[in-house]
Amino acid sequence: MDRLLKRILVLEKLIERNEWRIKDLAWETGLGVDEVVDTLQGLSKHYLIEIGEDEVLWNPVDIPGTLHPWGWRLIHRSVLGSTQNAARGRGPWSIVVAEYLVSARGRHGKTWRTDFGGLWFTIVPQVGLDELPDVPIAAPVIIARSIKSLYGIDVSIRWPNDIMVEGKKLAGVLVEAEAFPRYAYVYVGIGINVNNKPPVREAVSLRRLAGIQPRNRLLATIIGWFSRLKKLLEEREKLRDQYRSLLDTIGREVVVETVDGTVEGTAVDIDDAGSLIVEAGGDKKRFSPGDVYRLRYKEQG
Amino acid sequence: MDRLLKRILVLEKLIERNEWRIKDLAWETGLGVDEVVDTLQGLSKHYLIEIGEDEVLWNPVDIPGTLHPWGWRLIHRSVLGSTQNAARGRGPWSIVVAEYLVSARGRHGKTWRTDFGGLWFTIVPQVGLDELPDVPIAAPVIIARSIKSLYGIDVSIRWPNDIMVEGKKLAGVLVEAEAFPRYAYVYVGIGINVNNKPPVREAVSLRRLAGIQPRNRLLATIIGWFSRLKKLLEEREKLRDQYRSLLDTIGREVVVETVDGTVEGTAVDIDDAGSLIVEAGGDKKRFSPGDVYRLRYKEQG
Repeated sequence: MDRLLKRILVLEKLIERNEWRIKDLAWETGLGVDEVVDTLQGLSKHYLIEIGEDEVLWNPVDIPGTLHPWGWRLIHRSVLGSTQNAARGRGPWSIVVAEYLVSARGRHGKTWRTDFGGLWFTIVPQVGLDELPDVPIAAPVIIARSIKSLYGIDVSIRWPNDIMVEGKKLAGVLVEAEAFPRYAYVYVGIGINVNNKPPVREAVSLRRLAGIQPRNRLLATIIGWFSRLKKLLEEREKLRDQYRSLLDTIGREVVVETVDGTVEGTAVDIDDAGSLIVEAGGDKKRFSPGDVYRLRYKEQG
Repeated sequence: MDRLLKRILVLEKLIERNEWRIKDLAWETGLGVDEVVDTLQGLSKHYLIEIGEDEVLWNPVDIPGTLHPWGWRLIHRSVLGSTQNAARGRGPWSIVVAEYLVSARGRHGKTWRTDFGGLWFTIVPQVGLDELPDVPIAAPVIIARSIKSLYGIDVSIRWPNDIMVEGKKLAGVLVEAEAFPRYAYVYVGIGINVNNKPPVREAVSLRRLAGIQPRNRLLATIIGWFSRLKKLLEEREKLRDQYRSLLDTIGREVVVETVDGTVEGTAVDIDDAGSLIVEAGGDKKRFSPGDVYRLRYKEQG
């Protein structure tokens, strides 16, 4: 706990300014110089931080707050409860990024604590009501394509919207919306394991796949796609095709956990509403994303 | 840990502004409204916080940051390593107050974590070099007299500078100095158990003695005495008499823990340098404050 608080104290100052004399950092945080150096060394496993004799530098290409994406208001914080909640107070065209989340929200109200060094953010596009149903498909497509193009990593989508590499989860999406008569604000919460320790054994990070990475290129690429979201949503069939071609769920033996119990079977298709069709004991069952707590592939046990 | 972080997140915002709509507080911290209300309820045991239906108010008389003592620069923070370290970067005539300390420093390099609701601060007077030796005596006299006058509580001093009530520790002092050719900055670290849970069983808080208290009256009174420190130090004999009359150590059976081991005996006097003289097995031993880790009274086991 002390270690966590010290990291937060130091990170808070580094977000304020990316270059510090270590002595000044000690004064500002009230930590001893040794404590600051220890803390920086811990943080440097998760961030592009260079620790010199007397000074420390956090590389701006790893600091989301240095981005000023055109048309968006980006807020960068050290700690928040969840970026989804924080984005509610900011409205459309805002992006909230935090380094540490105390009560990060996953699907179905699950909450968890993050590690340092990931990309945890909520981006809030405004879309037409008719476009709204395709946002949960657009988001994983955007993330998958961004990672693929930047890192050349072969990513796929596990229904409905987990981003997977070699059967392990690299990123997750949570889509929430606030609908008005003519439009909706969509709160697209995105968590990508970049330089953090993956939260569970069945997850993986970019650091593990390719070494520690500066985060801004990835973040900027994703934001760029969201700037073109309208166009993406207009070409609905193309988007759905892209989603389908990234999806690795069809044809798999799956275990579907729902409120009503667990179903095992073969994933055979998804329909236009994004529901998964599973053949189990001769029956075809249809699952909407909202009803499924968890989807596992049977091969992985 | 989550509870601690949530409290820090909320407190940080309440220090920024003492009145909030709960919904805004949720947005700002990224916590859910329920989480905010829970957190506020926890904090209200340590602070004069009133939680309404939709709003919350922290009474300004309990917020150190609302004080602007003449001639001093007061800095109020939610979390710091230690106020002693933080004060180093601020120089003379500064006062650093924090609500939570991750590595609060005690005498002899011991570190500990605070609870919420105490008064943890460092005040930095500048004194003449000839006055320096009496500051460690002046500090506990100031604290003892302030508490006595405001609360009518019968406090005493346990050598060298613990503030005691009914044999239990209510406040502690750590004096550090930075000496120059003609003067010295004195970093007087003061910790008073006001509305916090006392850190150990052998300690007590004002809340336990007299119910939850607004802290600014006490803090302002102590700062007022430090504004008159020069005068106090000029009347050296009077100050020493006051110290002696508050000291409840003389005549006691004591256990003195030092680097060289433990000595049991009777405290018979203090000398002009502030050393304690203990009669043990016919011998008289002299202990300077810097050599003693811990002094206990034998009656208390």
